[in-house]
Amino acid sequence: MSQFENVTLVKEANVYFEGKVTSRTVLFESGEKKTVGIMLPGEYEFSTSQKEEMEILAGKLAFKLAGKDWETIEGKGVFYVPANETFQLKVQSVVDYCCSYLPNE
Amino acid sequence: MSQFENVTLVKEANVYFEGKVTSRTVLFESGEKKTVGIMLPGEYEFSTSQKEEMEILAGKLAFKLAGKDWETIEGKGVFYVPANETFQLKVQSVVDYCCSYLPNE
Repeated sequence: MSQFENVTLVKEANVYFEGKVTSRTVLFESGEKKTVGIMLPGEYEFSTSQKEEMEILAGKLAFKLAGKDWETIEGKGVFYVPANETFQLKVQSVVDYCCSYLPNE
Repeated sequence: MSQFENVTLVKEANVYFEGKVTSRTVLFESGEKKTVGIMLPGEYEFSTSQKEEMEILAGKLAFKLAGKDWETIEGKGVFYVPANETFQLKVQSVVDYCCSYLPNE
């Protein structure tokens, strides 16, 4: 069990796709921002404005970055999405995730 | 938008009812514990071990405490559940909630 300590948590959730994707925002003293969330089975498309690290904590999904092939994560895993890109997800079983917003290079 | 500051957030989610109810645990310096979560439409039954304050931040649900009638909350609202009781929920639209675990009286 991991913990984020000394953080600010935004109380209200971010709700997408009629609640099938939800997250909450975590702010760090360093200025860093993460969201922790849940995705229920379904197909989703997201766009980034910043570079994102998508850490999968549990569940099973396939992801497709622009111009790349589909890849699968089951259990724990991580992938990165460049800024200003669209990516696709096929969530096969409930996914618990942590998304870190990274400085653009 | 409300925030919890200087808190510890457990990274991994608590997942119930195949992901239709999920929450994350927030720990306060005072020793207080809350969970913030999402409930998708459906019917659920929960049991308490401690007294709980259920604050509804958004959504619509009906709740029934042991020996009481059904009551409805739409939008913001709050109800309390005594320790060691079972209560029922009918969630009608995606509910964003914050549950505070209160000292038993």
